[in-house]
Amino acid sequence: MEKMMAGTIVPEKKGSFELKEVAVPEINEDEVLVKVLKLGLDGTDREIGEGLYGQAPEGQGYLIPGHESLGVVEQVGKRVNGISAGELVVATVRRPDDCINCKSGESDMCVKGDYKERGIKGLDGYMAEYYKERPEYLVRIPNGLSNVAMMLEPLSIAEKAVMEVFAVQKRMIWEPKTAMVLGTGTVGLFAAMLLRLRGLEVVSVDRTSSNPVKDRIYSGFGITHVNSAETPIASIPEKLSKKIDVAVELTGNPAAVAEAFSLPGINGILCLLSVTGESYMYNMDIGRLNYDMVLGNKVVMGSVNSNIKHFLQGVEDMVAMEGKASGVLESMVTKRIKLADFKDYSVLGDRSQIKVVLDIGSA
Amino acid sequence: MEKMMAGTIVPEKKGSFELKEVAVPEINEDEVLVKVLKLGLDGTDREIGEGLYGQAPEGQGYLIPGHESLGVVEQVGKRVNGISAGELVVATVRRPDDCINCKSGESDMCVKGDYKERGIKGLDGYMAEYYKERPEYLVRIPNGLSNVAMMLEPLSIAEKAVMEVFAVQKRMIWEPKTAMVLGTGTVGLFAAMLLRLRGLEVVSVDRTSSNPVKDRIYSGFGITHVNSAETPIASIPEKLSKKIDVAVELTGNPAAVAEAFSLPGINGILCLLSVTGESYMYNMDIGRLNYDMVLGNKVVMGSVNSNIKHFLQGVEDMVAMEGKASGVLESMVTKRIKLADFKDYSVLGDRSQIKVVLDIGSA
Repeated sequence: MEKMMAGTIVPEKKGSFELKEVAVPEINEDEVLVKVLKLGLDGTDREIGEGLYGQAPEGQGYLIPGHESLGVVEQVGKRVNGISAGELVVATVRRPDDCINCKSGESDMCVKGDYKERGIKGLDGYMAEYYKERPEYLVRIPNGLSNVAMMLEPLSIAEKAVMEVFAVQKRMIWEPKTAMVLGTGTVGLFAAMLLRLRGLEVVSVDRTSSNPVKDRIYSGFGITHVNSAETPIASIPEKLSKKIDVAVELTGNPAAVAEAFSLPGINGILCLLSVTGESYMYNMDIGRLNYDMVLGNKVVMGSVNSNIKHFLQGVEDMVAMEGKASGVLESMVTKRIKLADFKDYSVLGDRSQIKVVLDIGSA
Repeated sequence: MEKMMAGTIVPEKKGSFELKEVAVPEINEDEVLVKVLKLGLDGTDREIGEGLYGQAPEGQGYLIPGHESLGVVEQVGKRVNGISAGELVVATVRRPDDCINCKSGESDMCVKGDYKERGIKGLDGYMAEYYKERPEYLVRIPNGLSNVAMMLEPLSIAEKAVMEVFAVQKRMIWEPKTAMVLGTGTVGLFAAMLLRLRGLEVVSVDRTSSNPVKDRIYSGFGITHVNSAETPIASIPEKLSKKIDVAVELTGNPAAVAEAFSLPGINGILCLLSVTGESYMYNMDIGRLNYDMVLGNKVVMGSVNSNIKHFLQGVEDMVAMEGKASGVLESMVTKRIKLADFKDYSVLGDRSQIKVVLDIGSA
């Protein structure tokens, strides 16, 4: 049995991360073996690393983490059609249960909650030299995206949010003009870029004044940046004389969430995307909020996860982003580490980083 | 010039209601003269009567109030096709401005706010023996609804809410099972009946234990009633072991609005329908609310007003309601007053009434 290097974690045990040798998975006739090239890391990885959650595959004492992958097809099972060795692929994350949404290809809308997630919940992820997968969970990547496609998973989260926003707003004739995106992590930057690609004016908000990588995105895409440490969130629309048609919230800060409720103008929509686990009591003017939402036909929606449709749209949009501002996606990768040099998740505590990527193999 | 009896109000002047003789409107070639048979009264009428708002037609010192009408076509202009004298009609309320939604027949989604509303804002309403109107704002009523169709306008508000809910939820595969309707005024009762007609289990919530008219609706439609004075709103889903797919809020009580935010289950939707003008500070767990909305893909939406599409759907549903529980609509009219006997809006302060109707003319 061949061996490979993999990162492993004992779920819910802080500091248990360890690189070790494990068996290379053996594929069935309907599966594909993928050699991992690059792996993006994010806040979910960090929280799993801190022992906050994560779930090992049944009967296995550890979990291989990692869900933002890019790999190359190494071997293809006999009964697999339409995918060949040498092709670049990204794997989706969630695996369906038998609920009505999962069975319809919408595992991101799972109503039952028995889904699994590679690298997070019940299934090994991609922080390893190889993984195996069924072809229906793999997305083919054009060679031009070989340096950036490990960010397709976080992009897919923004894609889902934007697609949900437009799906909801089909309830009426709607010609949105202005969007406001709170938070400039990877998903926030992607959401801002996507909304620009859709033709909206975009205001990007965080609590900083300058960052060379982000500034390059803002100028490349024509995005207005506002520092909310200087300008309170709720005052931004008036200050810019803008009616906000789409607000997207992904700061992870419940105070910002509370302020975001008042952002949408008439017929506008707020999409909540950040996960705020803890209780946060906030004194809210619910009478006024209700009045504004009713008389303005406004919507607030939550959005989580993504399905393969959002990954596929993401591939198209990555190409469009490269067309709009060449090199801008690659500039988001602010740190690269070799798998053999990766010791723990402390690097994710450095908030000046945008995307940290592990280099695992080469094509 | 022929004269007619009409109710009049000097807007924003409390206690200014007065019955007086005014001119019967003279129709243009593209208009229809309608003889008013019945007029429903609601909370908006009461607030206009109390001088809280309302706006007279330009250059006229008074407003004829009333927006829940049923009439019979008396006279048809030369250039009007497809509508004949003797037909029963209900008129819609809002008249469009030139915004994109209004121009598309969605005056209820007006983004500009320059719409007018008959009986409310800038145009005379229907508390008169006659009104004139262009045929595109009239909805034809089958004779079988001649005792109840003045409730088509409040029904249209519930129709819009339900249609919006289903339009928003087209974002996914969705098979809703359970709805909860907070508030049992006319619109609340209609919303509960509509959701039953759409095949959902419905829980109807108010702060009372028994009312003969409402009990007849609950038993005729198979609706479960819960008294929220005994069972706190937020605890109802758990108590009934129900996942709430659709919650509709129309209590007018901001504390109930705040509680309603936690009602929807995974993929669920809360539709806010009640108008709460005043500030009401509420200590809300916004961290938890955001977490639940994001991870559960939940939606909260506001809905106001209605357009002719909702009136037309309402006619169909009134027929279906009569088919399901004959006589139940008429039982909602708990008080009838002749126009000549109507002195002021104090009757609307009697909360035991469901629908108060003025008898104005006969066909």
